[in-house]
Amino acid sequence: MRAVDIIRKKRNGHALEPAEIAAMVAGIASGEVADYQWSALLMAIVWRGMDASETAALTDAMIRSGTIVDLSSIAGVKVDKHSTGGVGDKTSIILAPIAAAAGVPVPMVSGRGLGHTGGTLDKLESIPGFRVDLDLARYREVLARCNLVMIGQTAEIAPADKYLYAMRDATATVESIPLIAASIMSKKLAEGIDGLVLDVKTGNGAFMERLDDSRALATAMCEIGAGLGKAIVALITRMDQPLGRAAGNAVEIAESIECLRGEGPEDLVDLSVELAAEMVVLGGVAGSLDEARAVCRRTIADGTALAAFARLIEAQGGDPRVVDDLDRLPSPRTRVDIESPRDGFVRSLAARPVGHATMLLGAGRARMDSRIDHAVGVLLHRKEGDRVVRGEPLCTLLVNDEARLAEATAIIRDAYAISDAPAPARPLILERIAAGPGPRQAPVARPSSHDVS
Amino acid sequence: MRAVDIIRKKRNGHALEPAEIAAMVAGIASGEVADYQWSALLMAIVWRGMDASETAALTDAMIRSGTIVDLSSIAGVKVDKHSTGGVGDKTSIILAPIAAAAGVPVPMVSGRGLGHTGGTLDKLESIPGFRVDLDLARYREVLARCNLVMIGQTAEIAPADKYLYAMRDATATVESIPLIAASIMSKKLAEGIDGLVLDVKTGNGAFMERLDDSRALATAMCEIGAGLGKAIVALITRMDQPLGRAAGNAVEIAESIECLRGEGPEDLVDLSVELAAEMVVLGGVAGSLDEARAVCRRTIADGTALAAFARLIEAQGGDPRVVDDLDRLPSPRTRVDIESPRDGFVRSLAARPVGHATMLLGAGRARMDSRIDHAVGVLLHRKEGDRVVRGEPLCTLLVNDEARLAEATAIIRDAYAISDAPAPARPLILERIAAGPGPRQAPVARPSSHDVS
Repeated sequence: MRAVDIIRKKRNGHALEPAEIAAMVAGIASGEVADYQWSALLMAIVWRGMDASETAALTDAMIRSGTIVDLSSIAGVKVDKHSTGGVGDKTSIILAPIAAAAGVPVPMVSGRGLGHTGGTLDKLESIPGFRVDLDLARYREVLARCNLVMIGQTAEIAPADKYLYAMRDATATVESIPLIAASIMSKKLAEGIDGLVLDVKTGNGAFMERLDDSRALATAMCEIGAGLGKAIVALITRMDQPLGRAAGNAVEIAESIECLRGEGPEDLVDLSVELAAEMVVLGGVAGSLDEARAVCRRTIADGTALAAFARLIEAQGGDPRVVDDLDRLPSPRTRVDIESPRDGFVRSLAARPVGHATMLLGAGRARMDSRIDHAVGVLLHRKEGDRVVRGEPLCTLLVNDEARLAEATAIIRDAYAISDAPAPARPLILERIAAGPGPRQAPVARPSSHDVS
Repeated sequence: MRAVDIIRKKRNGHALEPAEIAAMVAGIASGEVADYQWSALLMAIVWRGMDASETAALTDAMIRSGTIVDLSSIAGVKVDKHSTGGVGDKTSIILAPIAAAAGVPVPMVSGRGLGHTGGTLDKLESIPGFRVDLDLARYREVLARCNLVMIGQTAEIAPADKYLYAMRDATATVESIPLIAASIMSKKLAEGIDGLVLDVKTGNGAFMERLDDSRALATAMCEIGAGLGKAIVALITRMDQPLGRAAGNAVEIAESIECLRGEGPEDLVDLSVELAAEMVVLGGVAGSLDEARAVCRRTIADGTALAAFARLIEAQGGDPRVVDDLDRLPSPRTRVDIESPRDGFVRSLAARPVGHATMLLGAGRARMDSRIDHAVGVLLHRKEGDRVVRGEPLCTLLVNDEARLAEATAIIRDAYAISDAPAPARPLILERIAAGPGPRQAPVARPSSHDVS
């Protein structure tokens, strides 16, 4: 089985056998497949695509390239959540303590932000002392103690995915649904989880802007999970405007804590609870989504979710007092309001430019090696549907370095579209796809539906 | 200008700017473009293609990656010939002395054989002592002395092409007309030539089996040459059966010498004279193809072409006595006849299996590092249209190592199709394409025509 023949087969539009895909992935570590051969195959995959069986085989081979974490010593159905990334999306930080407090073990492995999207790890690191670089032994320990752990991808998990991810970034082969699906799922399924809830974003602030693409990605990930015997639920959610009212790092931790206190903005709380409820059902703690939603809201009302978050912070080396005192989080030197130029209603607030401006202020990365300023970001006082009055602030920029302030200000000003009449409210959750053997005995692949919103 | 952005542009189907292509080629030597980036771009080019302007820019950049040989100290219009490769195709060895004897300086840089096709360098090396690895100084000297020189590609000529050629071979990105055209033309145009005659093969024994593809390749090469101010003529010729009656190395040199003595088979002599005549017209020695054909046939009749070949052999270290005594060439231990199974006529004699069998006998290479046995090969006594009698030899295998003799015999036996009635004769030269400023003031791009056969 020669690499060049496998590349030619895909170039000619044929489906590869699982053994061929396994040989290509094994060839990364053994050195039998050259990097220039893999990149040629990646471009051929972008061109020709991969079917469900090929995508599953690639995922499986990438999982086997490293350690598959054994969490069998920890009781319960382990469930994680993954988002394809958006602006102001801090749901992981809210829902993980909720699900853990509800009784579902949550072993969460997250990523960092790049471009206009933020990353859970960067946000967590704005908590003084918080460490995300635990090794796998410590990962297991914290999970056993807190029913919850939040770390970054370790070197042992899916090293072939790390290699291919970096190569795709340098060869313009990122934009391929099967490659994206296999990359996400290989990392998640190597963590030792039993179930996974996916938040697949769609819209101008999402990686996938078109609903069709988002649906195809969600379906591909559900098929991979089902094929490997895991229970998967994907919600396709709108990412046309930022989620919640905060975009940045410390400012998003503060907003997450407010949500866990029962004081968060409605869109963010509702989506966090919905995703947590899916986890609670997959985890076998509740028999229906309605029951699960009630369980989740109760963990907020009775303070157990906030307490779970405080315990997690302490276990991972952070200062748990931040949950009671938000002033312990880093704060910026300057706050700059952007005022509304007129009376009216916010017709739209484009997520991507808000994310871009936040990055320019220093809260995100233009490149993987950029440094982050945890204190800066944006607070959005007005969002879609809100009434605005000329001269009143639309939002506040949290600023340390004024070098790119003017540029960021202009971008955010343009992100707001203001009209005379309010636009009709749009649902946040657009579709739901479920697959795999769940505790609820869900059918293997249910058609997507609009019945959850 | 980042490599990843250039790759993405081609991936998305857009034409690259000359500066972008130049940057990618320059990045090979500087190390600024990683090999895995180039291979991804190659696959994107196989997918999306390149237009004439891009192909010219790639050729130009590859030429500039090395030395452009300066032959201005040598008088006359220097003309070379290139074939896309076939079975039994030894026309270069015949036409080069003819054109040189006719007064056209012929600086010829050739390649080696791979797979079912032979290579001019391998054939020449079957002449005892003949060296093809001259450096550029010696190349100029021999050309000045003999009006002819025949060497292999040196390290100084188009090193970027060498790099990309090896990479294409390992990444299934060989099959792309713009990449093939740019590779051939960069090597040829760096040699210091003024004009070039191309023999683009078509049919089962050719790299391009379909006439459409061969025409597209010929057109692409003519456009490149014309764009860089060179006079180019391409003949598209049929490679359905082997050319001449010999396939191998020494056996092809012997047949070439027979042609130069005026004793060669008609198809081979006619094509060699036709290609040489094109060179003689491009070289400004004759004003018309008819006149040029007469000039070329005269160099055979008066022995000046054979004398030119003998001078060349001596100048490149070989034994010139081979032109008078073919027994000085290496000969095989065994000769094995393959007899006709029935009476009738050869309806077809497939070139590719004959080439494959010749390779199995040791005359060719399965891989670039295979060793060649110069003495072995095949002599074809019967070809398309010939009458055959049951039990009389169709061909003779020239054998040293009998390890794969049975396999080679079976393959050649199957290559012959014998029918009751003779098939109609088919022309060898199918089309002619000319481009660029020739001494005949040919229009820049003449439409292909069937008027030459």
